[in-house]
Amino acid sequence: MLSIIIYDIPSDKLRSKIADVCQDYGLDRIQFSAFLGEINHNRREELLQKIKREIGKKPANVQLFPICDKDVRLRQMVVVNESNERTDKPDSQ
Amino acid sequence: MLSIIIYDIPSDKLRSKIADVCQDYGLDRIQFSAFLGEINHNRREELLQKIKREIGKKPANVQLFPICDKDVRLRQMVVVNESNERTDKPDSQ
Repeated sequence: MLSIIIYDIPSDKLRSKIADVCQDYGLDRIQFSAFLGEINHNRREELLQKIKREIGKKPANVQLFPICDKDVRLRQMVVVNESNERTDKPDSQ
Repeated sequence: MLSIIIYDIPSDKLRSKIADVCQDYGLDRIQFSAFLGEINHNRREELLQKIKREIGKKPANVQLFPICDKDVRLRQMVVVNESNERTDKPDSQ
């Protein structure tokens, strides 16, 4: 099932470590502090345990939401890149 | 329907403006650059139009995902606050 992981982590080092862990689990970076990807229940639990171990007692806020196929089809984006080119994804409904 | 909005916005001023807009639409801030809340289809479209107008040609990446009740029940969190107190939300499955 698709899941989205978003995080607020003050430490650059820890934030970068959490990004590495998400990438190791095959998730795609969709924003600086957000990953999205297909991950089954067992791997999701394993990923969360790994994230908890990395965080330890360091300040962090990590949230994971599974997203069903129906919801992901309703995803909407507004994207303007640094060259001021707009690349909105139109409503995919 | 619940929706989550996440954003990567380099400009402090624009980022703060987008946060205000999300708050105006009754969404709750769940992270520095993430809001979650109940919003119906029409209000969601209106919110997106407002966000697009605010962004104009300024660099920004805003993503909105509707999240159905089933998915939101599977939300998982790892939270350690600045006083190093862990307040994980247990699996709500």
